[in-house]
Amino acid sequence: FELSGPGINGSPLSISLEELKEGSWGPVSSRQAVLQCAGNRRAEMAAVKLVEGRAPWNHGSIGNALWTGVEVWRLLRKAGLQRPSEDNAAAGAPSSCDSAQHLIAEGWDFHAEGGKHFEASIPLGKALDPTGGVMLAWEMNGAPLLPDHGYPLRLVVPGFVGTRSVKWLKRLSLSASESSSAWQQKDYKILPQAYTTLSKADFASMPPIMAMPVQSAILLPEPGSVIDASQVSAVWFRGYAWCGGGLPITRVDVSADEGATWATAKVVEREGGGQGSDVAPDPNAPPQVGSRAWSWVKWQLPLQVPPTLRESGGKWRVCCKAFNINCDSQPGSLASVWNFRGLACNAWHYVDVAVLPAA
Amino acid sequence: FELSGPGINGSPLSISLEELKEGSWGPVSSRQAVLQCAGNRRAEMAAVKLVEGRAPWNHGSIGNALWTGVEVWRLLRKAGLQRPSEDNAAAGAPSSCDSAQHLIAEGWDFHAEGGKHFEASIPLGKALDPTGGVMLAWEMNGAPLLPDHGYPLRLVVPGFVGTRSVKWLKRLSLSASESSSAWQQKDYKILPQAYTTLSKADFASMPPIMAMPVQSAILLPEPGSVIDASQVSAVWFRGYAWCGGGLPITRVDVSADEGATWATAKVVEREGGGQGSDVAPDPNAPPQVGSRAWSWVKWQLPLQVPPTLRESGGKWRVCCKAFNINCDSQPGSLASVWNFRGLACNAWHYVDVAVLPAA
Repeated sequence: FELSGPGINGSPLSISLEELKEGSWGPVSSRQAVLQCAGNRRAEMAAVKLVEGRAPWNHGSIGNALWTGVEVWRLLRKAGLQRPSEDNAAAGAPSSCDSAQHLIAEGWDFHAEGGKHFEASIPLGKALDPTGGVMLAWEMNGAPLLPDHGYPLRLVVPGFVGTRSVKWLKRLSLSASESSSAWQQKDYKILPQAYTTLSKADFASMPPIMAMPVQSAILLPEPGSVIDASQVSAVWFRGYAWCGGGLPITRVDVSADEGATWATAKVVEREGGGQGSDVAPDPNAPPQVGSRAWSWVKWQLPLQVPPTLRESGGKWRVCCKAFNINCDSQPGSLASVWNFRGLACNAWHYVDVAVLPAA
Repeated sequence: FELSGPGINGSPLSISLEELKEGSWGPVSSRQAVLQCAGNRRAEMAAVKLVEGRAPWNHGSIGNALWTGVEVWRLLRKAGLQRPSEDNAAAGAPSSCDSAQHLIAEGWDFHAEGGKHFEASIPLGKALDPTGGVMLAWEMNGAPLLPDHGYPLRLVVPGFVGTRSVKWLKRLSLSASESSSAWQQKDYKILPQAYTTLSKADFASMPPIMAMPVQSAILLPEPGSVIDASQVSAVWFRGYAWCGGGLPITRVDVSADEGATWATAKVVEREGGGQGSDVAPDPNAPPQVGSRAWSWVKWQLPLQVPPTLRESGGKWRVCCKAFNINCDSQPGSLASVWNFRGLACNAWHYVDVAVLPAA
């Protein structure tokens, strides 16, 4: 791929995958990180009110993987971009180069109409932060990237909406302004609820989605599962929870009465159980304030089948929500976060299962 | 006050207010920042279910002020604590000194029983971050601190729960571990909902509150106001919105139908209108991803008196919620965030006003 822009020595540079693998641009390392589509759980929003006609994802448009590659902050340092003085950092400068404020990534894929290559940008401060987690990755879960996942090389931007993790990387460039592509300027912006069309949207007044909000979902039992109360008295509920921006999850709660009361689930795995790090984190220890979490947590909780359902059977409705370390939690109602694009849906996640009576 | 601990040259140092004012420990500067009590809006939680018997605050246990003093990161640099290498920063080190991980602040105030001085700590990374905003302040809104606000000198930790902004400062010390005081270890922790007593709480499993979640409230009209629909057809709703952790507020919504539909309010002031900075930020411009906001925003929105209330009069129930730049918003239900200590209440904020019919 090509690396260019202000502050880059010898710009434009041409950097090969072989150079990256040999460690010429920094040591090879691995990191567990979630990528979540902005439209994860869009189908739930669409059930409230019509959303723009895009992919009606359920809660599976998210994944946690072990990424192997090179840290982008190390690569940019080697390419010439110096750490800012602390005085300049205090004033918001991401590096010693005044005119570099954004990192633009271009992919080899292009739009069928017009032929423009996919392009997105992130604030350069994120890319240059040694704790920002941004990588150039060529392996996913220990194997070369599959074509669908961006072979041979992709950007991985942990904590940010998935679309910034540009696949099939063609070019990285530094710029004073963010990408001018429609993917940056229009597609991944949350419209205020009054908008039910795109035609009058004042996109310039809306910030692009970067970090994603607190999220959680119930994976098991699946919706529509049948629980035979003559066979079981309790059911294990299991799922994931994650928050963007590197903010650790502190708690996951489950409710069987539409949110009136909540039981706290047990977190059984953090940071992919430690894959990519030296030590598996203790899931029972409270997350440290200021530490970064890029991976999801897995949680579980056994719930007793309610006596009335044991007796008569019927629909059992259970929901979950999580808290991040800033004490932010998820909104109960889909209507309160509904937006015409169907983005960043993080209302409580419900699952309905059918209970057959014990008698 | 006294400054001591690993990495401090000549520890313990005695630093006078005069030295601070003369600029010996860094230039004197000013910053707008909100301080919010962990118990802001506790009264609303208490209405759901009994909370521990402490101050039943409404939504006024929060304030935005212009603080004048010295940046703590500059003071600690001058005292000898060096910036970590980027390799060490990537591994989570806040400074070049391995054994300094927390900044403990002690006040001159003490507990009536036992005589222990008030003490709290923050992660040292927050204090040493040039964009972390932590100050030692001797002026509030351009005048010397009043006794109630910590005269002569206090710590100001923007974005964190108010209790960490230790008043009547006696001592700052660096430590490998956080403060062992009950104020740090027990008082400002959110108990899972199952706890309705403190006696069995496993406090070690809960992280202390530091950054606070998205918050907003309606200030006008006040609860119980009477609107005469024969005199007015619309009412201006006004309030504040703020988020901890320096995360900018991107939007404030108001609903007159319990959250089914929302209108977006106009943000009329950001960052205290620019007090403490060179330029007043444009309240209409979208906040930049990665920038820090410590001040609240003021918002307003005119709502038409609903036709049914115009005709027949009655109770008009309006609520607000805000979004931060990570797309986190506020939960609708108080029950979902209820906790026995009554902390970090950030459910939608409701106000009920009375409408007299127009006829």
